[in-house]
Amino acid sequence: MNWWLEACQQPSMQAKQNAQQRQLQLTKPTGSLSDLENVAVQLASLQANSKPNIDQPWITIFAGDHGVMQENISAYPQAVTRQMLQNFATGGACISVIAKEYDAILQVVDCGSVGDAYSYSGVERYCIIPGTANFAKTVAMTEEQCIQALALGKASIEKAVASQASIFVAGEMGIGNTCSASAVACFLLNEKAEQLTGVGTGIREEQLNHKKNIINKAIELHRDYVKNDAFRALCAVGGLEIAAMTGAYIRSAQLGLPVVVDGFISTVSALIAVRLNPDVRKWMIFGHQSAEYGHQRLLKELNANPLLKLNLRLGEGSGAGAALGIIKLACSLHNNMATFAEASVIGEKV
Amino acid sequence: MNWWLEACQQPSMQAKQNAQQRQLQLTKPTGSLSDLENVAVQLASLQANSKPNIDQPWITIFAGDHGVMQENISAYPQAVTRQMLQNFATGGACISVIAKEYDAILQVVDCGSVGDAYSYSGVERYCIIPGTANFAKTVAMTEEQCIQALALGKASIEKAVASQASIFVAGEMGIGNTCSASAVACFLLNEKAEQLTGVGTGIREEQLNHKKNIINKAIELHRDYVKNDAFRALCAVGGLEIAAMTGAYIRSAQLGLPVVVDGFISTVSALIAVRLNPDVRKWMIFGHQSAEYGHQRLLKELNANPLLKLNLRLGEGSGAGAALGIIKLACSLHNNMATFAEASVIGEKV
Repeated sequence: MNWWLEACQQPSMQAKQNAQQRQLQLTKPTGSLSDLENVAVQLASLQANSKPNIDQPWITIFAGDHGVMQENISAYPQAVTRQMLQNFATGGACISVIAKEYDAILQVVDCGSVGDAYSYSGVERYCIIPGTANFAKTVAMTEEQCIQALALGKASIEKAVASQASIFVAGEMGIGNTCSASAVACFLLNEKAEQLTGVGTGIREEQLNHKKNIINKAIELHRDYVKNDAFRALCAVGGLEIAAMTGAYIRSAQLGLPVVVDGFISTVSALIAVRLNPDVRKWMIFGHQSAEYGHQRLLKELNANPLLKLNLRLGEGSGAGAALGIIKLACSLHNNMATFAEASVIGEKV
Repeated sequence: MNWWLEACQQPSMQAKQNAQQRQLQLTKPTGSLSDLENVAVQLASLQANSKPNIDQPWITIFAGDHGVMQENISAYPQAVTRQMLQNFATGGACISVIAKEYDAILQVVDCGSVGDAYSYSGVERYCIIPGTANFAKTVAMTEEQCIQALALGKASIEKAVASQASIFVAGEMGIGNTCSASAVACFLLNEKAEQLTGVGTGIREEQLNHKKNIINKAIELHRDYVKNDAFRALCAVGGLEIAAMTGAYIRSAQLGLPVVVDGFISTVSALIAVRLNPDVRKWMIFGHQSAEYGHQRLLKELNANPLLKLNLRLGEGSGAGAALGIIKLACSLHNNMATFAEASVIGEKV
């Protein structure tokens, strides 16, 4: 049996009940902290701790390049993938600043970017393949390559768990990867590109139409191979970083580490993970609703109510990272507010 | 001339332009941090500093009781107002935990609660009147009382500015004050209670209908006195804490201190302030969209796009307080992300 089909941990119903009970006793009208209450209770359940915390967040950025870039579907050149890897590691990127803000460990994993071998301090280079193949012409990854990419995500979770991480954020970097993610989403949701394709980093309307055409043609090309198999959809039109995030989400659920899901591309990985192993869904907190067209459709499919709605569309885990601040506050409120009894406040309704 | 009509400070257009320029140079697709970019740029403009910060937040909770409680319009008894004052001061309330989380000074001002004289450590007691009059029968406050309440808000801002505060949050406490705020909003927006009245801390449908009836009758009762005068609407059906927040918002704009507006009741105060002195609007950041029915209508009137949408309905400045975390992150990103040049990343489109 493939490792990703192994059973997930089960969240603690006892911790959940205890946390719900505590919320009812805190000095506020019942339910008045709504989403902040819900995320604290969910985290209590996932951490099997009625006083949840995110004292030790772990963020991994998975990067990969995309052969479909040959089709001119992005606003940025492919060289930016590697340039950003250095920027993550040297602290200048959005997610680097967020990691510092919330005392998170930031791991940067290059699953396969285009170019010669290199060595950057702070970047773990694997190079399963130097970018996927062009899915407009052939499968993006062989099944063996995809399995290697899933394993990179698995390895990150195992590292995070070994270092006592309390919550995990997966982010991605890969110029062209909204195109790949949209194509995977089309297979998973049985939709046309028009329903699930947006402007990514910022292409104009003409280029957007071209991107949709490329995706629709690829769906036709790979339909017989993929059928209704999420793993094959990932191989056919996915990316190395998308596969790595999928592996990370699955392993986190198997080892009982809560994850915060980021935006469009991460949510595609989350959906693949849930299709491969449905109990993975229980370990997911949704960080934000992206401005990328199609994200709401994906969130609906996962029955997800994200914490933040800030119109972000940056990727690299930034929305989930920003949500760490809200989750941290939710934990503080849950753990530190006084109960009606402690504060001698009348709690019952008149 | 009344002090609240005096001119406001003008935000710095130069700092705004500099901040906008900087945002364009940071290593991310143009506009991809959306609301986080906008709030950083706004704050840069308000602080006349191209690198904005919220190193020293100041939160004041204004409390007051409401005579309209005689009409049975709330889910909680009036004694809770005072009980919560102590809870704020001893650190057990939601806003107390938030203040600690973001290193904010928390000032607690009792503008007039029902009951005997008292002395609680950490609570400043003024008692303009021990609760307003019942606006179902007479004006809630005389004009003189209302002016005294406005002055309490003014005084808090002057204290905050003297202590070098970088941003200000006004919160409120007063059992029954959604009823009062809804009534004021009806006058300001020329609407019936049905458009602007919600469940507050959590009343059932029957009591909600009763609350709407009370408000609609009060609008009829006070119509000739109020006409289209926002100050008179505040006197007729407002509250001491609502007036104090109004005074605070106006003085903050006059002294150039940015404010974060909280939920339904605070937004009513914000709207009164803007009606009395329109330039006050420029100094407002909107923290969150409350679950309280009618808040969206108020936000629309103020052309406001709040940062958080967490379905909170607690009051006491909690939504604006939670937004401090997002504003803090927005400042960190604005100030600490690398530019394309610094990180040697290609910024231009292909």
